[in-house]
Amino acid sequence: MRPSGRQPDEMRSVTIERNVSMKAEGSCMVSFGNTRVLVTASVETSLPPWRRGQGLGWVTAEYGMLPRATGTRTRREATSGKQSGRTQEIQRLIGRSLRAVVDMGALGENQITVDCDVLEADGGTRTASITGAYVALADAVAWMNERKLTKGQVLRDSVAAVSCGIYRGTPVLDLDYLEDVEAHTDANFVMTGDGRFVEIQGTAEQNPFSRKELETLMQLAEKGIAELTEKQKAVVSS
Amino acid sequence: MRPSGRQPDEMRSVTIERNVSMKAEGSCMVSFGNTRVLVTASVETSLPPWRRGQGLGWVTAEYGMLPRATGTRTRREATSGKQSGRTQEIQRLIGRSLRAVVDMGALGENQITVDCDVLEADGGTRTASITGAYVALADAVAWMNERKLTKGQVLRDSVAAVSCGIYRGTPVLDLDYLEDVEAHTDANFVMTGDGRFVEIQGTAEQNPFSRKELETLMQLAEKGIAELTEKQKAVVSS
Amino acid sequence: MRPSGRQPDEMRSVTIERNVSMKAEGSCMVSFGNTRVLVTASVETSLPPWRRGQGLGWVTAEYGMLPRATGTRTRREATSGKQSGRTQEIQRLIGRSLRAVVDMGALGENQITVDCDVLEADGGTRTASITGAYVALADAVAWMNERKLTKGQVLRDSVAAVSCGIYRGTPVLDLDYLEDVEAHTDANFVMTGDGRFVEIQGTAEQNPFSRKELETLMQLAEKGIAELTEKQKAVVSS
Amino acid sequence: MRPSGRQPDEMRSVTIERNVSMKAEGSCMVSFGNTRVLVTASVETSLPPWRRGQGLGWVTAEYGMLPRATGTRTRREATSGKQSGRTQEIQRLIGRSLRAVVDMGALGENQITVDCDVLEADGGTRTASITGAYVALADAVAWMNERKLTKGQVLRDSVAAVSCGIYRGTPVLDLDYLEDVEAHTDANFVMTGDGRFVEIQGTAEQNPFSRKELETLMQLAEKGIAELTEKQKAVVSS
Amino acid sequence: MRPSGRQPDEMRSVTIERNVSMKAEGSCMVSFGNTRVLVTASVETSLPPWRRGQGLGWVTAEYGMLPRATGTRTRREATSGKQSGRTQEIQRLIGRSLRAVVDMGALGENQITVDCDVLEADGGTRTASITGAYVALADAVAWMNERKLTKGQVLRDSVAAVSCGIYRGTPVLDLDYLEDVEAHTDANFVMTGDGRFVEIQGTAEQNPFSRKELETLMQLAEKGIAELTEKQKAVVSS
Amino acid sequence: MRPSGRQPDEMRSVTIERNVSMKAEGSCMVSFGNTRVLVTASVETSLPPWRRGQGLGWVTAEYGMLPRATGTRTRREATSGKQSGRTQEIQRLIGRSLRAVVDMGALGENQITVDCDVLEADGGTRTASITGAYVALADAVAWMNERKLTKGQVLRDSVAAVSCGIYRGTPVLDLDYLEDVEAHTDANFVMTGDGRFVEIQGTAEQNPFSRKELETLMQLAEKGIAELTEKQKAVVSS
Repeated sequence: MRPSGRQPDEMRSVTIERNVSMKAEGSCMVSFGNTRVLVTASVETSLPPWRRGQGLGWVTAEYGMLPRATGTRTRREATSGKQSGRTQEIQRLIGRSLRAVVDMGALGENQITVDCDVLEADGGTRTASITGAYVALADAVAWMNERKLTKGQVLRDSVAAVSCGIYRGTPVLDLDYLEDVEAHTDANFVMTGDGRFVEIQGTAEQNPFSRKELETLMQLAEKGIAELTEKQKAVVSS
Repeated sequence: MRPSGRQPDEMRSVTIERNVSMKAEGSCMVSFGNTRVLVTASVETSLPPWRRGQGLGWVTAEYGMLPRATGTRTRREATSGKQSGRTQEIQRLIGRSLRAVVDMGALGENQITVDCDVLEADGGTRTASITGAYVALADAVAWMNERKLTKGQVLRDSVAAVSCGIYRGTPVLDLDYLEDVEAHTDANFVMTGDGRFVEIQGTAEQNPFSRKELETLMQLAEKGIAELTEKQKAVVSS
Repeated sequence: MRPSGRQPDEMRSVTIERNVSMKAEGSCMVSFGNTRVLVTASVETSLPPWRRGQGLGWVTAEYGMLPRATGTRTRREATSGKQSGRTQEIQRLIGRSLRAVVDMGALGENQITVDCDVLEADGGTRTASITGAYVALADAVAWMNERKLTKGQVLRDSVAAVSCGIYRGTPVLDLDYLEDVEAHTDANFVMTGDGRFVEIQGTAEQNPFSRKELETLMQLAEKGIAELTEKQKAVVSS
Repeated sequence: MRPSGRQPDEMRSVTIERNVSMKAEGSCMVSFGNTRVLVTASVETSLPPWRRGQGLGWVTAEYGMLPRATGTRTRREATSGKQSGRTQEIQRLIGRSLRAVVDMGALGENQITVDCDVLEADGGTRTASITGAYVALADAVAWMNERKLTKGQVLRDSVAAVSCGIYRGTPVLDLDYLEDVEAHTDANFVMTGDGRFVEIQGTAEQNPFSRKELETLMQLAEKGIAELTEKQKAVVSS
Repeated sequence: MRPSGRQPDEMRSVTIERNVSMKAEGSCMVSFGNTRVLVTASVETSLPPWRRGQGLGWVTAEYGMLPRATGTRTRREATSGKQSGRTQEIQRLIGRSLRAVVDMGALGENQITVDCDVLEADGGTRTASITGAYVALADAVAWMNERKLTKGQVLRDSVAAVSCGIYRGTPVLDLDYLEDVEAHTDANFVMTGDGRFVEIQGTAEQNPFSRKELETLMQLAEKGIAELTEKQKAVVSS
Repeated sequence: MRPSGRQPDEMRSVTIERNVSMKAEGSCMVSFGNTRVLVTASVETSLPPWRRGQGLGWVTAEYGMLPRATGTRTRREATSGKQSGRTQEIQRLIGRSLRAVVDMGALGENQITVDCDVLEADGGTRTASITGAYVALADAVAWMNERKLTKGQVLRDSVAAVSCGIYRGTPVLDLDYLEDVEAHTDANFVMTGDGRFVEIQGTAEQNPFSRKELETLMQLAEKGIAELTEKQKAVVSS
């Protein structure tokens, strides 16, 4: 039995609200249950020096967590003077995930920076971030299209992410915080709308897992991603 | 004529929504027009070493701004490795403002940390932060009272803040971003519910101001603070 | 009765000695009683990148305190790896105060950096710094005038600063360290030679203050600034 | 055809030389072809504060690369003032991989720190590091056993790692630098001696991969890990 | 011919003024010609953790330079976020030099921190610092003696320092800035009052030097140190 | 009697193995007994901005120590966020030593960076580093000569270094760690192949030393350097 009473293959309630920022070219508030992430996509018509002059654009991401997004207050990274290894891992993952569906030539010599800031954390902040980041990115691209800043179709597909894990012996979809703490195996899947993999990160906290277990987790992920993709499509086209 | 069409002594629409965080002991979302700040108050039953053993509590504040709270994206302080001088000035101001209305003996050897994170910035982020911080603080104190963690009345009064300035020759109340950029004189007032001053910070960006002009700004501030105090009372008692 | 035996409206003995550095274009040693600050003004005929190409100059300030300027040794900021929030607040204040009396067009595309280093601290280090900084700045401007580096009158007025506070119930002028520690209300005033305000920073450490009390402090400040202005004039014209 | 002329399922020549440090309790030089990593395992009979008093030990890892391990000189992290996101990701991965095969209770309240320093980099530095780290760890544990510092069997299994990827359309085992730069899909597998997974990290640099492709990569990995496990066994028992 | 017109074996005018700080237990302003250093010695009756419980004291030193001590303004180390390699080298040298004449057992479990801050730099700042540091240290020790904080004779001898170099082919004593810039060989000597060496640091900027040249420099240094020792004795006993 | 059984004027076994890095333009592994340092010399055909446009090259050095080069693990400098004062002192010394034998005009507008990374430390890491650095530098220069990147003879002489000290009253050559810890006087000598001095750094840890003692140490150093120079010649010409 899951703490939330969900079925093993049942996602939390997912909502994506667009246009939550007056200023960003794309933005959304994404919720996976009680996890809430504010995502903005910022368009710049310039590039970092190492990327210039190749006719290609760039997409990058940053991730942060408000100090009291967590059960006990976490120290602010701006105060401690650096981003933690965990933060850097997550923001690198978000950036790679988005770049996997972007045609950099079509983007032109422009940069889009996606900021994912966690307002409340209840497990799955990186998967919610990626799922919302795609929506904010799509809106920023639409904003650019209107201004004729792009050269053709920038987005080749959608991208979304979900976590799965083995909780008390049962493979389950979309871990919340209580499950995440206890799960011995935990895997994050990033997939495109057409069902292919962009990233798989599976970790055995204590007990190594078998290939069979991994396959079960993959099946759960495919189900979850399909639902998230539907949600993204509905929101973006609206 | 103000860009927003407001009267010189007219505040922007102010809203304070309580209990916006599942985890913080006190929290609110405060808006001064398009400026929106998420405030949380976190209770810890321990103190920093330098404050221990005196029978007194401590209240401190931190301030941050999401990268795309502003018209163009601002670099994340966690990435640049330090808080700017401006950020430090503001969070020190918020902390002092709150401490001015707290009875540290009644708080007991506990610490409350108030985090003010600006989701959208349109001028007056520090005054909105202080005004909301009082509400989150009051809720955190109420939470402590219920658990008998306090010794008597912790809050001696309410505290709120507003900015005034001279915009195109006219003294106006509650500057928004467009006014703030252009105003030659700019003053922030922090006042208690009974109408006394906790902080005054007046700055002449270019033209020094006279005592008379300062007095006009004070009168506007008193009007604004009275309205904010009403709003705080209505919200806290609800 | 003040610890120093001064009258409530009596400043400490103030001295300003010019030309204390062989190398700086302008310099002075300023003392407010036992507080001693070494000030240098350095002229550069270049500007930071963000300021270039507008035909305007720039004036900025930095502040530091020697480790044993204080009663017990303070950690050196170069060792701790960053300037404290207090240091940043003070140097930003000094810079703003000077800029308020400078005609940036007349300065041309040049920068003056004023360094205020406290050799001994006995209260009022920021007000002594500002008062001395004007003198060093005036000497640096004179140095530029001789070399025809300016375009017209750079300094529109003089600027000086003093602190006032309520010490054991009595409003007093120019707080020394013993008074500063104990004062419940403390205000710094930065004013031009013609008696207008550049900055007011009033803080209630514990008891909020009334508008009437503020006005008494302002009157004291006006008296103190008038004396400082006289001293500056005498020194600069010599 | 691979640049090195290897078969798709052929690993580079792997060597592990033990006892290369006079001082470390365990150490080895591990080579995967031209990639060479110096690994040391250091035993401390104390723990970081957060881990004390639970009767459990701790294993952690750090990773570094000499500036000229790479084709062009890379800036020294000690000079730039921080470890890169990549470095942190890798050392976190090494630490997790080792902890997955350690019985922390048997280790007692002791800490083992494994340092992996890359002397020459030709692709696969993280997989070589993990593979060598197990050997150094085993030697450090043996050193502890001799001194009766452990409580029972510390190592539950061996652990090794290998990368696979899709190079010019063909799935290949153990990517070297030339292959790594060009491969569109790249996956690192960390597995125990009994063939279960500790970590999987698969990344599509440009073209998302299918479940079928992932399975092919897994098969290659299983073959490679089996060979590495043999090598580790031979070395450790010698 | 030296730029200053001095004879090859002639020191600059040296002055040491004691008791220049109201607060430090020992202090002096030391000048070697136009080089001026403010030195304070601060007594603490506690020790850093690594030194405790051995019945021994500690003496350490820090060095700094005001931004405009130099001909063109130097960036403030507190702003750049770290002490330069040069600064660290110098403060380590000062600390070692002082410790060479201190009986740590007689000092008891106390620490003396000597701060050397260069107000004006014209060559020889490290040698002036060491020479002045001994005087400030002696005063701090006297202060401790009066309060019976020491156990016997703390200072075993005096210590002073001077630089020598080969300027346009001629060995000269006590290089000033103009000589220092041009000298091909430059050596700093730290010696005790009884004429023995504490430190020798000789550097050939371009042309390596012979043993004979080194001996000539040593003779110059012995002459200079003897004069400095006289000066120190006269000042300390007054 | 020395711990190693060596004669007072006997160096440890010294070996220099060239071409230990596949990628660096010059490299060697240098051993002074159990001290082992990996040295690489990296050629860049560009210069840091401050050195450009003068027709002169630049040679610089960096120094590092692997965490377990020492008897107990030392904290990694990349983790602590900065290079220690000791590290900076050493790398500045290495750089100066190499520059003393380089004709910067002949080098042309190119930079060579020499990295000295200590794999095992048993005393004398800086002297071994300098001695090996010359060999790596010579190979890098030869590499440049082959590509006609130089303008004439770059190296004017060889350079090597050795330490001497007074161990239990006896002057000895080439201190190992056990001797270094105990020696009261310790001196490092950097000399050219023709027997002249580039650097002398003598330090009295406790007992100041006499001129006579220094001369004895110099004689030992001359003997040691002569042996090192022979070794370098044999290796470089091979």
